Amino acid sequence: MPKKKTKSASMSTFLTNGRSMLLAYDQGLEHGPSTDFNDRNVDPSYIMEVATKGKFNGIVFQKGIAEKYFNGKVPLILKVNGKAALAKGEPMSRQNCSVEYAISLGAKAIGYTIYLGSAYEGEMFAEFGRIQEQAHKAGLPAIAWVYPRGAAIQNDTAKEIVSYAARTGLELGADAVKIKYTGDPQSFSWAVKSAGKSLVFMSGGPKAPTDEAFLAQVQGAIDAGATGLAVGRNVWQNEDPFKIADSLRRIIFAKKL
Amino acid sequence: MPKKKTKSASMSTFLTNGRSMLLAYDQGLEHGPSTDFNDRNVDPSYIMEVATKGKFNGIVFQKGIAEKYFNGKVPLILKVNGKAALAKGEPMSRQNCSVEYAISLGAKAIGYTIYLGSAYEGEMFAEFGRIQEQAHKAGLPAIAWVYPRGAAIQNDTAKEIVSYAARTGLELGADAVKIKYTGDPQSFSWAVKSAGKSLVFMSGGPKAPTDEAFLAQVQGAIDAGATGLAVGRNVWQNEDPFKIADSLRRIIFAKKL
Amino acid sequence: MPKKKTKSASMSTFLTNGRSMLLAYDQGLEHGPSTDFNDRNVDPSYIMEVATKGKFNGIVFQKGIAEKYFNGKVPLILKVNGKAALAKGEPMSRQNCSVEYAISLGAKAIGYTIYLGSAYEGEMFAEFGRIQEQAHKAGLPAIAWVYPRGAAIQNDTAKEIVSYAARTGLELGADAVKIKYTGDPQSFSWAVKSAGKSLVFMSGGPKAPTDEAFLAQVQGAIDAGATGLAVGRNVWQNEDPFKIADSLRRIIFAKKL
Amino acid sequence: MPKKKTKSASMSTFLTNGRSMLLAYDQGLEHGPSTDFNDRNVDPSYIMEVATKGKFNGIVFQKGIAEKYFNGKVPLILKVNGKAALAKGEPMSRQNCSVEYAISLGAKAIGYTIYLGSAYEGEMFAEFGRIQEQAHKAGLPAIAWVYPRGAAIQNDTAKEIVSYAARTGLELGADAVKIKYTGDPQSFSWAVKSAGKSLVFMSGGPKAPTDEAFLAQVQGAIDAGATGLAVGRNVWQNEDPFKIADSLRRIIFAKKL
Amino acid sequence: MPKKKTKSASMSTFLTNGRSMLLAYDQGLEHGPSTDFNDRNVDPSYIMEVATKGKFNGIVFQKGIAEKYFNGKVPLILKVNGKAALAKGEPMSRQNCSVEYAISLGAKAIGYTIYLGSAYEGEMFAEFGRIQEQAHKAGLPAIAWVYPRGAAIQNDTAKEIVSYAARTGLELGADAVKIKYTGDPQSFSWAVKSAGKSLVFMSGGPKAPTDEAFLAQVQGAIDAGATGLAVGRNVWQNEDPFKIADSLRRIIFAKKL
Repeated sequence: MPKKKTKSASMSTFLTNGRSMLLAYDQGLEHGPSTDFNDRNVDPSYIMEVATKGKFNGIVFQKGIAEKYFNGKVPLILKVNGKAALAKGEPMSRQNCSVEYAISLGAKAIGYTIYLGSAYEGEMFAEFGRIQEQAHKAGLPAIAWVYPRGAAIQNDTAKEIVSYAARTGLELGADAVKIKYTGDPQSFSWAVKSAGKSLVFMSGGPKAPTDEAFLAQVQGAIDAGATGLAVGRNVWQNEDPFKIADSLRRIIFAKKL
Repeated sequence: MPKKKTKSASMSTFLTNGRSMLLAYDQGLEHGPSTDFNDRNVDPSYIMEVATKGKFNGIVFQKGIAEKYFNGKVPLILKVNGKAALAKGEPMSRQNCSVEYAISLGAKAIGYTIYLGSAYEGEMFAEFGRIQEQAHKAGLPAIAWVYPRGAAIQNDTAKEIVSYAARTGLELGADAVKIKYTGDPQSFSWAVKSAGKSLVFMSGGPKAPTDEAFLAQVQGAIDAGATGLAVGRNVWQNEDPFKIADSLRRIIFAKKL
Repeated sequence: MPKKKTKSASMSTFLTNGRSMLLAYDQGLEHGPSTDFNDRNVDPSYIMEVATKGKFNGIVFQKGIAEKYFNGKVPLILKVNGKAALAKGEPMSRQNCSVEYAISLGAKAIGYTIYLGSAYEGEMFAEFGRIQEQAHKAGLPAIAWVYPRGAAIQNDTAKEIVSYAARTGLELGADAVKIKYTGDPQSFSWAVKSAGKSLVFMSGGPKAPTDEAFLAQVQGAIDAGATGLAVGRNVWQNEDPFKIADSLRRIIFAKKL
Repeated sequence: MPKKKTKSASMSTFLTNGRSMLLAYDQGLEHGPSTDFNDRNVDPSYIMEVATKGKFNGIVFQKGIAEKYFNGKVPLILKVNGKAALAKGEPMSRQNCSVEYAISLGAKAIGYTIYLGSAYEGEMFAEFGRIQEQAHKAGLPAIAWVYPRGAAIQNDTAKEIVSYAARTGLELGADAVKIKYTGDPQSFSWAVKSAGKSLVFMSGGPKAPTDEAFLAQVQGAIDAGATGLAVGRNVWQNEDPFKIADSLRRIIFAKKL
Repeated sequence: MPKKKTKSASMSTFLTNGRSMLLAYDQGLEHGPSTDFNDRNVDPSYIMEVATKGKFNGIVFQKGIAEKYFNGKVPLILKVNGKAALAKGEPMSRQNCSVEYAISLGAKAIGYTIYLGSAYEGEMFAEFGRIQEQAHKAGLPAIAWVYPRGAAIQNDTAKEIVSYAARTGLELGADAVKIKYTGDPQSFSWAVKSAGKSLVFMSGGPKAPTDEAFLAQVQGAIDAGATGLAVGRNVWQNEDPFKIADSLRRIIFAKKL
């Protein structure tokens, strides 16, 4: 499948020949430090270093990490909402950072999570709507993390559900959408088609059992037309983050050769 | 029944001799791509082409589709609220696009869905109230999709319910109201009367079993005094969208001859 | 009982020698067209005509009706909130029209419904509070429809309840209050006293079994000190609206002779 | 116990030699006219006369009463929130009058009720917080009616609860706090100490069985360090309001001699 | 573990050689006067004296206490939210003081409590987000009290939970985070690491059974890398607050020698 062209010029900051590899690091808030971090990767300075030396196309931070650790050497995507993993009930992730403030921290794109299917879905649609407009007025793209979740969702990697997530991003004006992998390139290509001109990033997810298993998923997503990958744990939980980053880069940017 | 005259000049953008045929394409958000789309109509570019070549009087998009695909050749109605089909519970559709932003995307009218009878009806009344005023101040008409839905609604095509929907649009200041067909011209004419000077658009609904069945409904609505039709699936799910569009046009615009 | 004097000059627009007869027509939204309307009175133009030729002191419309039908010949009271009759649960009626917009439509007074005793009473108190101030700043009186309703209300025409409604209007700053009749002049006079300098309008309510029965109620309200009547169904559902209007006028304005 | 000194000069408007006797008249909204009023005291003009001739240090009105009856001869405390007694459930009293509007009506202080312990306590804390700042910016003191109420409250005159109410007023920035009497001077003095530099007004409460019983309570509160009394029913339900006011004055202002 | 360096200069107001000892006094609102206070410490003047003579690096007050008692001799941290202890249910602490007002009272830092894991967590995340930005724009640091609480929390001093609290502060942009002690230096050092460049203050908590027990905890926190202590009851409930303050100072500032 050919690489997508984005109408808005602004996602180009994060693209190398139309492809992209982003480093995500919002897990400290989303999952808590004891779930995902060790003595090395608990330190945002280390992640900043991985992003820089690992030649990532962008780094994803919450406002506090960006404010205290961002070095300006990798384009910044500021996640402006977030939630912790402790509270139960239908998921809701509220805005904790204004678009204006995100820009003051150096952001080149705004990230926002929508829990599709949650009882609070509507509030996130509305909040993303405002954020998307503010971002576009300021010349920044808006990237939607669309995660189907809540009592209404049976299987969040089903083709129908993932493609619905992708389409939701397009309909609501996201310039790129981060979604889970469906498990095979054929079903994922439907999600990519559903996303239309919104670029698709595969969500890295929890650490895969083997590097090979993870690389195969990424290959499948790229084959299905994804623009790239937003990866966190599978890189910075890896014993050698730079080696796995190299392997990912070979897959993601293969077609540019 | 004679064609209605609209006091506000602005609906005239969407009228040909007082009648109108609109193409609706918000189903990607409302129903999800796997429910309604195939490889052809999943692509908004194709729909844009159908609207243009099919000589529709207007096209209905969510903000994201408008932003990335609208070609300016057909008057744009921007739906400024929307919900996905996954979450259960009383329906609520929140604003995700400002009137100002809709106008910047080229909108010539603002669309908004009200779930009449929902526990959240009041919030939609209030939100539509603000939107209607902003639209009118900017010189744009406001079009209400009024759909009776929620635990309080037994039969959403009953004469009493459809006419209540029509009247709600008039009372709240909608310049046009999109409602379901009641099943026969006589009962539908009461809905049209209830709508007063608000123009009535029959909602196309799911793909009818045969073209004939669908065309008969449209004929009934027109006979009952409807201004026209807002149709989606019955056109772009049709094997030959241009042929069915031709047939629809012959019915809708018949009296202008 | 002597006629009340209003401190604020603005209610005088709706008074003839201190008395008043208002025509209410918000039933299309509040009850639905099939409940209250027939082929004649479903048309707001007809109501506008009744108000004009019937020499009413004011006409009550929702924004949409005012925008499309108001002819400027009778002072306009714009009801800025409203709800439909379909949803169950504690009643709440949210603002759907700004005071500024109401004025742009020609309103000479702002109307607002408060469901006293509802679980949402506080939100209506707060909303009416803001509206009352905006209206007064613009020189318009604020008229409160105070209807005790919800699970906490056993009998909404009991003397204690109706007088509580009347007093609520006074305490919250309403220049006039529309309340139900208690059934006899003596108990209603307590409601009138409780309203203090807020003018009291008896609510016409559903069509009475006979004209005589209705006229007797109105006589009782006037005897008890009411300023007048806000009547809808008992006039425009009447076979001869002008005749019953004449009869009402004779009762309401009797004392000016 | 010595009389408190207030840092803010503005409460001085309501003080005579550091003591104060306020007349409260918001019962029409809080309890309803049939519960508390008779033909005489249902009329706010009469209350205004009692306040003026009875030489009260201040009068407490809701906005509507102030707007239509306030004569400017007694300093006005405008209660900017209020609720009726009909709805059940956790108590919440929302703002119905802006500080700006209160000032335009002649207010020299802003009153606000907080239902401590209610499930909605937090919303009242937040609302009072905004009001207190607006009042102070305008040079007016903020007076908090702090009433422990709701399912969490067993005994709203217990020493621990009343002192918590008093302290809440101080912590949130109230210049004066109106609280219930605990029943004896010793326990009430702990509430007064807890209130710190916030002046303490004993709440008059329902009509006491005898004048003597009520006067003894007031004596106890004054002995415990209260600045004064905010009294309503025990004065204007009294057969001779001026006589009881005289008796109260003798107790409250005794020490100035 | 080496002392942390703070990127933002503004926390330096509260530091002596990179360490800090803060006096907390918001218990009057959070717990009520009868739970925590006696005749001596119920008086904020006394606490102000303890803070001044006890050479604390900062004093924590709610707005009302600051407004009436703050003497300007110790840097002020204004807690801009708070709740009482009476209401049950998921904890929520709403803003009662604007950042602008806090600054007008002399605040050099803004404090805010987040109940991590509460059903209302998201509203506190959002509110803190706005406050943090306002504070930073005004040049003030934002300090987060992060307390895991609510039905989802089993053990609020578990290593995983305390470190999650610490990390939440960092992610949301707090310049310092106040957290409970985990019980031993090793587990607490993980919380300190999780907080990254956000300074960590151990929360003093309820009066310890003996001074020795409390001092051992503080030593443990300092050994684990904490910047200092925010202590209330263990100082001002102590018979000799100045003596315990001396002991605390010796532990907290030991390494500067």
